[in-house]
Amino acid sequence: MKRPVLGVDVGGTRAKFVVLDHEGMVVQTGDVASDPESPENTLGTVAAALDPSLWQQDAAGSPAYLLSGVGLACAGIVDPERGWLGRSPNLRGWENSDLFAAVGKVFGNVDRAVANDVNSALYGESRRGAGRGCRDLVMIALGTGVGGGVILQGRLVIGAHCGAGEIGHMVLDPAGPVCTCGNRGCLEAYAGSVGLLKAARLAAGEKEAGRLRSLLDGRGATLTTRDLALLAESGDRAACELFAAAGRRLGQAVGNLINVLDPERVIIGGGVAGAGDLILEPCRRVASGIVLAVEAKEVPVVPAELGTGAAALGAALMVATGENDP
Amino acid sequence: MKRPVLGVDVGGTRAKFVVLDHEGMVVQTGDVASDPESPENTLGTVAAALDPSLWQQDAAGSPAYLLSGVGLACAGIVDPERGWLGRSPNLRGWENSDLFAAVGKVFGNVDRAVANDVNSALYGESRRGAGRGCRDLVMIALGTGVGGGVILQGRLVIGAHCGAGEIGHMVLDPAGPVCTCGNRGCLEAYAGSVGLLKAARLAAGEKEAGRLRSLLDGRGATLTTRDLALLAESGDRAACELFAAAGRRLGQAVGNLINVLDPERVIIGGGVAGAGDLILEPCRRVASGIVLAVEAKEVPVVPAELGTGAAALGAALMVATGENDP
Repeated sequence: MKRPVLGVDVGGTRAKFVVLDHEGMVVQTGDVASDPESPENTLGTVAAALDPSLWQQDAAGSPAYLLSGVGLACAGIVDPERGWLGRSPNLRGWENSDLFAAVGKVFGNVDRAVANDVNSALYGESRRGAGRGCRDLVMIALGTGVGGGVILQGRLVIGAHCGAGEIGHMVLDPAGPVCTCGNRGCLEAYAGSVGLLKAARLAAGEKEAGRLRSLLDGRGATLTTRDLALLAESGDRAACELFAAAGRRLGQAVGNLINVLDPERVIIGGGVAGAGDLILEPCRRVASGIVLAVEAKEVPVVPAELGTGAAALGAALMVATGENDP
Repeated sequence: MKRPVLGVDVGGTRAKFVVLDHEGMVVQTGDVASDPESPENTLGTVAAALDPSLWQQDAAGSPAYLLSGVGLACAGIVDPERGWLGRSPNLRGWENSDLFAAVGKVFGNVDRAVANDVNSALYGESRRGAGRGCRDLVMIALGTGVGGGVILQGRLVIGAHCGAGEIGHMVLDPAGPVCTCGNRGCLEAYAGSVGLLKAARLAAGEKEAGRLRSLLDGRGATLTTRDLALLAESGDRAACELFAAAGRRLGQAVGNLINVLDPERVIIGGGVAGAGDLILEPCRRVASGIVLAVEAKEVPVVPAELGTGAAALGAALMVATGENDP
């Protein structure tokens, strides 16, 4: 009987993990501190948190893990073929490192898979979430930044330099607001939480934005897009317009991507997508207007289903199926 | 010994064709009238123009073609798997027709391949032109309209509704000039010849545009982008700025596509690309500024090499190799 697989989504401060049994059922999930300086330390912390049924002591008294494979998801430039992490925004100490080797050091001779975190989340959604049954998918993750991923004919698009999926840095208006990347008018500058909060501060200066202004005065630097979404859900027009404006720009990006790639479905994930139809309805309306092929005008634009566990689950599924082997 | 293959690129008024021998050498090229109402008529005209060495009379006195395969390229929504043409902008009478059957009626029991014309041209470029040796390619064809195609991991991206590649209708600024599709700010509205000629008429009203104004007065409705390119090549600043502006918008689209797909190379074809570095240099500069991944900033943006014969050649190569079989 095939042994369980482990999937780990490594962020700058926490590592989420999931263990699937040979039938793909979740047998453990967890969340431990990550060490942004050391893949081995982080994987060691995960290993120490594994259920006792998943390891035994070997003759030398060291733990021997009863796993058939380990999948890793990391932000940054990941080469799934070589198991290599290049640049990473939040794991500086892991940059230019051999992740396959790090997995081997901690877990021994197991199958391995690594992927960019958004690609991993998309893979998870494609198997168990909002993309089930689709061979051609686009995902956009609206977080602090905006990430993306593409699956075509059932396979993740990695790119010639392992750099594909930077959907957040499509420029939607060269005269638009400044983005963290230094350009103007990137999707991220409109629909990432940093961009949205900046837009909220601007909008709060307007006459009809009294409740928005009060919210900002109250929360100050602790303001989140969740606060804004709650205000919008209560019917505040200024807050609604913030999400609608972000949604229209998201729709421009989605329409452009449908024109280029003609997927079966577009999945919108990340915290900002928690605003639901406040952002998705304007997005769908604008996207449909931009799409040229009549057949593709009604491509569903749907919320992600797996939440923050998607990338760990995707990493586990990737190593379990071996299907994204290059 | 394997028999020759025929590739046909069918436009609204002309059909270009090429015959390759079993070693892939060109043995005949031609250009005949197409019948936008009838695939069989058009293919019959091509058949009648074939070199006598490519057919013989059968027992009944009818021609029997000595071909192993026939590839067709058409503008519109083409399903390469079913051999089906859906909507087509310039072959109205061919819409919703079985192209595999039409080929069979004229040429008998031969291998068949069909593709969208820009995809076919891209396939040609990927084998024998500007994309040789690359597995991940984007092509943008700047003609009257703007078409596009994508090859990833060596295979054409067709899309879930056979509608992929509409790069010309990526919206680059929702407040931009009106496009033939009804939207504003599409790449086509900036960098297709219709858009460029419209921009020239606008620019001719400005004070420093004396030579441009004279050119427009002289040519009237017969003005072409070639005329504009000649004026720009002579050093006229207003004409140069027209191509530079189109090139910057092209660069925005190219940068966005590199961010999403991370190809090895981007190929720019079509008549407007005849302006060469007048349009390609600003394009490269803007694209490089938009690309996020350092590794992808220097992705070469190169002119197409095969000219107007690319689609016919691509169709012939597709059926010869059978490599794009789904």
